[in-house]
Amino acid sequence: MRHVIFGESHGSAIGVTLEGVPAGLELDLEEMQRQLARRAGGHSALSTARKEADRVEVLSGVFDGKTTGTPLCLVIRNSDQHSGDYESIRYTPRPSHGDYAGFIKSRGCIDYRGGGHFSGRLTAPLVAAGTVARQLLRQRGVTVSAHISSIYGIRDASPQSAAELLSVADKDFPVLDDERGREMQQAILDARKEGDSVGGAVECLVDGLPAGLGAPDFGCNVEGVFSQHLFAVPGVKAVEFGAGVAFALMRGSEANDPFVVEDGQVRTETNNAGGVNGGITNGMPVTFEVTLRPTPSIALPQRTVDLRTGEETEIEIRGRHDPCIVHRAVPVIEAAAALAAWELLGQ
Amino acid sequence: MRHVIFGESHGSAIGVTLEGVPAGLELDLEEMQRQLARRAGGHSALSTARKEADRVEVLSGVFDGKTTGTPLCLVIRNSDQHSGDYESIRYTPRPSHGDYAGFIKSRGCIDYRGGGHFSGRLTAPLVAAGTVARQLLRQRGVTVSAHISSIYGIRDASPQSAAELLSVADKDFPVLDDERGREMQQAILDARKEGDSVGGAVECLVDGLPAGLGAPDFGCNVEGVFSQHLFAVPGVKAVEFGAGVAFALMRGSEANDPFVVEDGQVRTETNNAGGVNGGITNGMPVTFEVTLRPTPSIALPQRTVDLRTGEETEIEIRGRHDPCIVHRAVPVIEAAAALAAWELLGQ
Amino acid sequence: MRHVIFGESHGSAIGVTLEGVPAGLELDLEEMQRQLARRAGGHSALSTARKEADRVEVLSGVFDGKTTGTPLCLVIRNSDQHSGDYESIRYTPRPSHGDYAGFIKSRGCIDYRGGGHFSGRLTAPLVAAGTVARQLLRQRGVTVSAHISSIYGIRDASPQSAAELLSVADKDFPVLDDERGREMQQAILDARKEGDSVGGAVECLVDGLPAGLGAPDFGCNVEGVFSQHLFAVPGVKAVEFGAGVAFALMRGSEANDPFVVEDGQVRTETNNAGGVNGGITNGMPVTFEVTLRPTPSIALPQRTVDLRTGEETEIEIRGRHDPCIVHRAVPVIEAAAALAAWELLGQ
Amino acid sequence: MRHVIFGESHGSAIGVTLEGVPAGLELDLEEMQRQLARRAGGHSALSTARKEADRVEVLSGVFDGKTTGTPLCLVIRNSDQHSGDYESIRYTPRPSHGDYAGFIKSRGCIDYRGGGHFSGRLTAPLVAAGTVARQLLRQRGVTVSAHISSIYGIRDASPQSAAELLSVADKDFPVLDDERGREMQQAILDARKEGDSVGGAVECLVDGLPAGLGAPDFGCNVEGVFSQHLFAVPGVKAVEFGAGVAFALMRGSEANDPFVVEDGQVRTETNNAGGVNGGITNGMPVTFEVTLRPTPSIALPQRTVDLRTGEETEIEIRGRHDPCIVHRAVPVIEAAAALAAWELLGQ
Repeated sequence: MRHVIFGESHGSAIGVTLEGVPAGLELDLEEMQRQLARRAGGHSALSTARKEADRVEVLSGVFDGKTTGTPLCLVIRNSDQHSGDYESIRYTPRPSHGDYAGFIKSRGCIDYRGGGHFSGRLTAPLVAAGTVARQLLRQRGVTVSAHISSIYGIRDASPQSAAELLSVADKDFPVLDDERGREMQQAILDARKEGDSVGGAVECLVDGLPAGLGAPDFGCNVEGVFSQHLFAVPGVKAVEFGAGVAFALMRGSEANDPFVVEDGQVRTETNNAGGVNGGITNGMPVTFEVTLRPTPSIALPQRTVDLRTGEETEIEIRGRHDPCIVHRAVPVIEAAAALAAWELLGQ
Repeated sequence: MRHVIFGESHGSAIGVTLEGVPAGLELDLEEMQRQLARRAGGHSALSTARKEADRVEVLSGVFDGKTTGTPLCLVIRNSDQHSGDYESIRYTPRPSHGDYAGFIKSRGCIDYRGGGHFSGRLTAPLVAAGTVARQLLRQRGVTVSAHISSIYGIRDASPQSAAELLSVADKDFPVLDDERGREMQQAILDARKEGDSVGGAVECLVDGLPAGLGAPDFGCNVEGVFSQHLFAVPGVKAVEFGAGVAFALMRGSEANDPFVVEDGQVRTETNNAGGVNGGITNGMPVTFEVTLRPTPSIALPQRTVDLRTGEETEIEIRGRHDPCIVHRAVPVIEAAAALAAWELLGQ
Repeated sequence: MRHVIFGESHGSAIGVTLEGVPAGLELDLEEMQRQLARRAGGHSALSTARKEADRVEVLSGVFDGKTTGTPLCLVIRNSDQHSGDYESIRYTPRPSHGDYAGFIKSRGCIDYRGGGHFSGRLTAPLVAAGTVARQLLRQRGVTVSAHISSIYGIRDASPQSAAELLSVADKDFPVLDDERGREMQQAILDARKEGDSVGGAVECLVDGLPAGLGAPDFGCNVEGVFSQHLFAVPGVKAVEFGAGVAFALMRGSEANDPFVVEDGQVRTETNNAGGVNGGITNGMPVTFEVTLRPTPSIALPQRTVDLRTGEETEIEIRGRHDPCIVHRAVPVIEAAAALAAWELLGQ
Repeated sequence: MRHVIFGESHGSAIGVTLEGVPAGLELDLEEMQRQLARRAGGHSALSTARKEADRVEVLSGVFDGKTTGTPLCLVIRNSDQHSGDYESIRYTPRPSHGDYAGFIKSRGCIDYRGGGHFSGRLTAPLVAAGTVARQLLRQRGVTVSAHISSIYGIRDASPQSAAELLSVADKDFPVLDDERGREMQQAILDARKEGDSVGGAVECLVDGLPAGLGAPDFGCNVEGVFSQHLFAVPGVKAVEFGAGVAFALMRGSEANDPFVVEDGQVRTETNNAGGVNGGITNGMPVTFEVTLRPTPSIALPQRTVDLRTGEETEIEIRGRHDPCIVHRAVPVIEAAAALAAWELLGQ
């Protein structure tokens, strides 16, 4: 299965084309809308002013409710754009946004309105595509679940099982420990009050993948396949599998996961490896954590350069912006993980 | 340019096939051997008992000392194998090695001797391929350099410039601060004494890439391309760009990199983003840190499962093994980064 | 540049997603509509009853009239469907259509209405994608032109130059020799009168490609790249480069193209090789001919199998159908050739 | 499975790297040598003076006689080179060889000796790779067989079944009708006497592919996949499926293949479509014919250009050359077809 995400934040539509979807899947569009609602984060007091219905239109690839094996094109119309707001950033790129890099890449032909193709809005079609992958995975007994693992240094509890982690999916603010969740929300509101934003991390668990998927080789190895999908999510700057960066503090005797037998199955007692040995799944849950940078859109004045004159100047970004995207990123990370897991199953 | 690494630790040879090498490159085979010598780590007291000449034979793609644009096949013969040593692990997989995952994937047909295709020995052809990429990059003014950033919690100094980092390449133990380097070596020797191993991290800097490479999209974005190459290096379990996992502790006002003008060029004052905004290079050095797990080969008894009987048992790995691979991983990470950087330049 | 064509003949829309379109191209949508009109063949008395406006909507990737370097999604709404007509073919596949093969592949989940994703209607988005490639090629001095070379054994004249061939593009019935064109049309009308259809061939010339594109290797060679694009056009069953099948009747001394100097340039005196030696362009026009099978939709009773009962039966296809698609295939072959030529330029 | 062929005619070795070979195949190296012997055509009086042992060395990917699922590298050493012979062609390209196109592509860095990477010698590793595919196909009940269908206008009989066609594999000169074979050989000898060469065609049949492989879409369709493999064989200039170019002379009522029931299976009464409808296999044998141009190496003086002076000159190619490669191409076409068939089965 291969996906191409298209669209711009203030263009007529955003969407995704999906090749290689197997025929015969009963596409659950209601679940797709539910996942999109999680991403929109509409119920939360923490979210952006922009409200979109995000109705998915299926242009192709589905007949009588089932996929036909031909490419799917899923389209979401843009409705609530205020393009006028963005004229000010056309030649004064916002720090740590894609504005400048995109301006250079496109030789000035970038659609700068609202971040254009770089906008977080483009995670909506990613979630739509991921929902298709999740439905395919479910038929194979594979689930994908995630939670906010930390925001601005406040850490959630660690999940004890895939089932526990699946239970946070219905929450507006998907954490295991709601008390910690309230602290995180307070940190977000504090930042917003000061016109600032905060970063955080999402932990994800893919349960049910059989042992033997992937390869040690470039292009096939499990960590490589997942990371390529995960880094395509805007704002992701680090990806760690299993014990992750903590491996640098460990000895082999602590880090190694002894093989044991459970219910007649080979398992590992611990799962520091995050379910992957030598680039191949070992039958344990694949676990990873991704770090998301603080939203670069802040309400404080920032230094930048006027690309017309080549001189330094200041920019102040107008309009309301999310001071944190980590909670809304949870279904997006799940979607990216689902696409990666399906790619591995199909190799 | 596309590479395929082949070979097994105790087969007749290892090597790499490289497609898409541009014609006309004067291949510097001496540099290739120097990079292989760095990887072999032969001078250090810390390294493995196995000594190989690692002479590269160029089977194809080079004529009169220059590349011809046709595929290169680079072969390194294996000579110093003691295959008999490995019979004991055939059906009792070593914890946190690829033995078990590979056994399942290959339905028992794995070449288990010395880790086979999963062996760290396979990083030699990766270094050879990376040397070709480095030589191509140099013609475009791009350099790749790295150092040991930490071992078992002991951190090296931070590089102030690409030039400073390039200077560690000649060191047996590539750190900026040799005092810290000695502490790290002591930590390694301590671990060895106890039959154990230690993990660590490597920081890498790619200097000279122009702004505008990559794309926000899956399959093209800079972090995704680098990470796919980096996770293909055995033992890598985390990849962080710029400030990396520290972003989770930051506010946007700290994390954002203001645009400034230096010598008439648009630059950023800080480089928390690691040279990448919106999946595209912004003209600053691309910086990242990778975490390497402790060598899973330790001399202590470990629990495992006998795959013939399905019962738990114990394994004790014989022979000498490196208690740390982080220092030898430095040229390997550079090689993987060079391949990624060249891929981005060619997109 | 990579394209994915989506849609079904009687679904809500058809279209194409295009990745890798360079930024800064002023997209000429009028030319796109003109090419679509050529494909629709609306003016001719020979064409199908179905009339569609075929208006292209650009959902993404274009801003202020120029491409932005992000994926384009081009959509054409379906309007004139009579889906009820097709219920009869659901389980009785039409001979030599994709009905049966598609039924098996999709495990019965095929959208059978009007051929679904197999319909010749899907050549409309191919023409749209090809127009983008043509506009890019034009900036590099490359033109693509084609004519009907034969229908039911009646052969058109041979083009003496690229310029001559370009002149047929404005004709309803694109042949060089209009007298032969009238004979071909009579052959088509004769076939229609008898409820039958006829096959033919299209000859195409790509002018202006520099020498040195392609490679002898699988996946890169010029003939391979073109043929993969050409065989993706419905109805194409043979592709010949240069002298094509006539090479089997020739001696080397006749077939070889001597090198000569013209205006200081290396050229070949003849062009039997069709502009390709050793899988690489030699600077001469790339020429090829494709054979299109007779439309499988005929108004005569045909034998088939009822897939529900597994028993032989008869089918009679209702509705009006084109007795020949060769003339309408001319812009489609050009589009496929333009996509191939652009792929080679970008390698 | 993906293959990369490397090597030059007069370099140290030629070979192929194969990724994605499934683990557990008992590799039959004797069959591989038999297929290479067919390609070498050593027994025939018609073949080139160059005699090579063509012993395949398996560098990787096989353990205890079985594939391990890791990349295979197969190497054939070159031994019988007379490189001095080729200095004369360095700057005076042979007409209709890849010399000139390769010179331009490589900016003069081509290995010109004996055609270098463009040499027909590179079909040896293709045959080796194809043998692996054939062995995999055989486990799935798929066979690939071919014969010389014509040389210089003399046509062989048409095969009545896959079994009949398989029987020609043991012949030095693989035709069904040996009388016609003798006429063909006479035509070759006549051409040789005059220092000339002749072209011809090979017909191939892939039997046992299930219905439902492939897709109408670019990159997946059956004809496209086969043709990309076939055009990578040096000298192939046309590929026709089923009735091929004859479709241009036919009416739909002649061309269509009625569906019938045979032994409870859906089949077609005729197989004009060559086993493919709508880009998907229909369960009938996939049949195609490829045309091979006459060997461009002829012993007659030919016009060319001196690339140093830019002036026209003459060239006379020294040494003995095959006046026809069609008979030796039979196992090569089979190998390319086997790789294509395996690719389709694995999609």
